[in-house]
Amino acid sequence: CNSMKLSSVNPLVGDIMTSDVSIIQAEASFNDAAKTIMDKQFSHLPVVDKDNSLVGILTAWDISKAVAKAEYDLVKDIMTKDVVTTSPDEAIDIAAFKLDSNNVSALPVIDSKKKVVGIITSDDISKLLARRQ
Amino acid sequence: CNSMKLSSVNPLVGDIMTSDVSIIQAEASFNDAAKTIMDKQFSHLPVVDKDNSLVGILTAWDISKAVAKAEYDLVKDIMTKDVVTTSPDEAIDIAAFKLDSNNVSALPVIDSKKKVVGIITSDDISKLLARRQ
Ligand SMILES: C[S@@+](CC[C@H](N)C(=O)[O-])C[C@H]1O[C@@H](n2cnc3c(N)ncnc32)[C@H](O)[C@@H]1O
Repeated sequence: CNSMKLSSVNPLVGDIMTSDVSIIQAEASFNDAAKTIMDKQFSHLPVVDKDNSLVGILTAWDISKAVAKAEYDLVKDIMTKDVVTTSPDEAIDIAAFKLDSNNVSALPVIDSKKKVVGIITSDDISKLLARRQ
Repeated sequence: CNSMKLSSVNPLVGDIMTSDVSIIQAEASFNDAAKTIMDKQFSHLPVVDKDNSLVGILTAWDISKAVAKAEYDLVKDIMTKDVVTTSPDEAIDIAAFKLDSNNVSALPVIDSKKKVVGIITSDDISKLLARRQ
């Protein structure tokens, strides 16, 4: 076998996702979002409504874009509403395909009720490849 | 062989890096940086001095942090100066290890004269894993 070894079985999203993901409310301010991104050292925040259901995603890139356009609005005004998601029981290579084909760096992980249970990023997937030394 | 197949040989950074990377001058303004990040759709900008040598890295996360702290300074004031780098002939799994162990999402690719010849991100590495369909 000459292929690069990741593991002997195909891991699932639930095996490598970050469970203690920071989320933000759609009604939060632009500044709240920037503060959360700084404090939590996350570049991607799933956005939820009052019922804690996923309604969007906000990234450091969106903050930077809002700065460039001088549009300092609420999270709901600058977030991406059409979110590509995954679930804990999806295979990692499917999640990697979704990241690639949608040109995004992170997928919120949701349960059947659209509640956010984690996040998986291309950083997490890249880690699978890091040679442990 | 039960391992996930990436390719039959271990690819090099030079094989999958992005060569037409956008860079920014250390003396550029905060707003120039935000505009470049928006226009080029990149989250990570290698920062160069007047001789085009690498002196730092600036990311959308740094822009977001500057917003949170209300510090709208020059690129050189908000960039990360201690940059982890790679070279075109480094193996991908070493680059993945550097990303992981330094908790970063991108590595500028430099030549022997510290000139930036590309960038490699965890997105690029994650793509290796995406099942081509
Ligand atoms: C520590 S990470 C935390 C954010 C989050 N983990 C992410 O996905 O972007 C962000 C910081 O890493 C820095 N950084 C990014 N790439 C770097 C590199 N290759 N070498 C050194 N610092 C880097 C950025 O300038 C930024 O200040």
